[in-house]
Amino acid sequence: MNYQRFFEEAIDQIHAERRYRVFADLERIVGKFPRAIWRSNGKAEEITVWCSNDYLGMGQHPDVVAAMQKAAGNMGTGAGGTRNISGNNHPLVELEHELADLHGKEAGLVFTSGFVSNEAAISTIAKLLPNCLILSDELNHASMIEGVRRSGAEKKVFRHNDVGHLESLLQAAGRERAKLIVFESVYSMDGDIAPIAEIADLAEKYNAMTYIDEVHAVGMYGPRGGGITEREGLAHRIDIIEGTLAKAFGTLGGYITGTRSVVDAVRSYAPGFIFTTALPPAIAAATTASIRHLKNSQAERDAQQCQVTHTKQVLADAGLPVMESATHIVPILVGDPELCKMASDRLLGVHGIYIQPINYPTVPRGTERLRITPTPFHSNALVAELKEALVETWNALGIPYRTEGHTEVPKSERIVSLLVPQSGG
Amino acid sequence: MNYQRFFEEAIDQIHAERRYRVFADLERIVGKFPRAIWRSNGKAEEITVWCSNDYLGMGQHPDVVAAMQKAAGNMGTGAGGTRNISGNNHPLVELEHELADLHGKEAGLVFTSGFVSNEAAISTIAKLLPNCLILSDELNHASMIEGVRRSGAEKKVFRHNDVGHLESLLQAAGRERAKLIVFESVYSMDGDIAPIAEIADLAEKYNAMTYIDEVHAVGMYGPRGGGITEREGLAHRIDIIEGTLAKAFGTLGGYITGTRSVVDAVRSYAPGFIFTTALPPAIAAATTASIRHLKNSQAERDAQQCQVTHTKQVLADAGLPVMESATHIVPILVGDPELCKMASDRLLGVHGIYIQPINYPTVPRGTERLRITPTPFHSNALVAELKEALVETWNALGIPYRTEGHTEVPKSERIVSLLVPQSGG
Repeated sequence: MNYQRFFEEAIDQIHAERRYRVFADLERIVGKFPRAIWRSNGKAEEITVWCSNDYLGMGQHPDVVAAMQKAAGNMGTGAGGTRNISGNNHPLVELEHELADLHGKEAGLVFTSGFVSNEAAISTIAKLLPNCLILSDELNHASMIEGVRRSGAEKKVFRHNDVGHLESLLQAAGRERAKLIVFESVYSMDGDIAPIAEIADLAEKYNAMTYIDEVHAVGMYGPRGGGITEREGLAHRIDIIEGTLAKAFGTLGGYITGTRSVVDAVRSYAPGFIFTTALPPAIAAATTASIRHLKNSQAERDAQQCQVTHTKQVLADAGLPVMESATHIVPILVGDPELCKMASDRLLGVHGIYIQPINYPTVPRGTERLRITPTPFHSNALVAELKEALVETWNALGIPYRTEGHTEVPKSERIVSLLVPQSGG
Repeated sequence: MNYQRFFEEAIDQIHAERRYRVFADLERIVGKFPRAIWRSNGKAEEITVWCSNDYLGMGQHPDVVAAMQKAAGNMGTGAGGTRNISGNNHPLVELEHELADLHGKEAGLVFTSGFVSNEAAISTIAKLLPNCLILSDELNHASMIEGVRRSGAEKKVFRHNDVGHLESLLQAAGRERAKLIVFESVYSMDGDIAPIAEIADLAEKYNAMTYIDEVHAVGMYGPRGGGITEREGLAHRIDIIEGTLAKAFGTLGGYITGTRSVVDAVRSYAPGFIFTTALPPAIAAATTASIRHLKNSQAERDAQQCQVTHTKQVLADAGLPVMESATHIVPILVGDPELCKMASDRLLGVHGIYIQPINYPTVPRGTERLRITPTPFHSNALVAELKEALVETWNALGIPYRTEGHTEVPKSERIVSLLVPQSGG
């Protein structure tokens, strides 16, 4: 065994499959969001980011930045330990209260990332429940799949957002058996929304626990930013609401909220929670400032929805293959991995527009896409620039425009149809 | 299945087993390290933290705090995406270069935590290597055990720091089979050190890869803070050096360093790396400032070693059961979980001294202990206070002092013996 050669060949193979990822070296600029400095081959130039998950630009909000700076100045840059061994800092305790309140739950628990929160919470809950059956949506995020896997529990995958399929699986399991339904509110690659009310109905009917991932919704939906469950008045019908601090709230970390006893069980049993350093007080304080702002301010949500609608319309009017999406996610179909990568490279190199290509395995083969996320700070002028750049790129590379089936749809209906939930790509 | 009752009973059981953990609500005070505000039952009082993993107090260093504040002001509070999708920020790129340089390796890769770095790197490397056998020290940290488990690879556990046992396992596996030896440099509950040179010799002899966890050593050992491998001139003989940013460097996150191809393979294949938001630029910038300071300044390491030696001596002179330790970790044996918890509660409530009890399963039953971590900022006056408080607590609770076997050792020899590596408790 020649280890060095082995790993070199593993990398060569990724290159050969055209799956090798180069991370763009970015420096975002506070006050100029969504502009950033992009460094490449010794040069630095200013570009526009169109694929950030800082969906509302809260990562540069003056209150949020000030809260981080103040906490760092008063309490330092780190937590100094695990939650149990001297790392449980007061801003983190306050943040967990804030999150419980956001979702109308008894308790909240913060993790170092959304990935860890899903993995640790799902695996711990399903491992504790005797003979638990997990019912998992087929398009769930990698972190949820890892949580399901690690639990060791039996799992059944239901077709994406298919409540009929879910019901047949619940029925087969029976009321007595412990069951955990895990799903997302907003699926981030397509921008469609789960039928939460119907899933809650089924959970009640068949006595199952429900676990929802709201990472692409918290901050952005509901009158206080409590996510789709808040917007639809369903938070009280879902047992565990999981979210992230690293997208619309603009900082770092993940969390769950639920009853005191469920949250306490995860806190007490999950290795990925117990044996890891707590989030720094500066991160916690910044996050609480962000959540509190978004609980009281509708302006960011309104502006985001407005710019999302505008972007969808402008791009669709240009004949670009905007995929249907009920949310702030605007996927543009390319349908070929090479073209998708080339389009992304050209947008960045020629037009100074950064949109990461989304290829298999993140999305199914043949549905490769550019995934655009307009924020309140993507002005109409930036949208116009984006359209020009996409059209130039589509023409230069010969990427297909909207197919006939789509272009036949009258404009007004097409815009409406963009707001109807739909799965897949 | 009554879910609510089930989880309530799970928590009741932890209470019944006296394993229920209450996290102390702390607010550290920049400029007054290791002092902190402790909130309990509506009261707030100032206490001294004696169990922090911010081993050198770098989390409050002016350069480190300023770097975080400046980066937050310029680049915001979050990264805004995964490494691949717009989250790869320039300070993080710089940090990875800094870490590679620290350990004399080709490349570095940063994760959101040390836990994730171990879990993701070990599982990915062992999964990629065909028919890999993992050889794992029996006292490895929970995060390494998770990495081993998740790899699905066959594993053999060798007795703690026992190179004879390790060799017999390597021999049985043969030269041809892929093998990964995973171990720590400093074992944090006992403070003993692995026989790194001997393990490197065996790895060479039997053609095995080596993976060392230096989380309790980086920043504190070696002329530039490169850990025990640097101090002993062995970094080039270990394939992967893993470390944390959340202990001596005073911030958050974990990392690996190694050859370009191994690091690139982990970067390209590990879900726990790929599908998670990047560390914020403010955390990365603060960490780089901390590492650079500790590369150039020996003062913190000297002062820490000085106060560690002083603390060990003062406590041992008082007859307290200081366990042998070759490092900055000072464990005091209690040997009973109830007494250990009571001692910790009394130290905090009566004396304003915070030392978390370390009980099973973190350490073997019968070796329950208080784990003390003196820093450069624990002055002789604070050490004297600590001694008084421990003696009062030992007397009040009737905890055994040093056994005869220990007290018979003459003072000078006893101090020397504290510096000799020794495993177990």
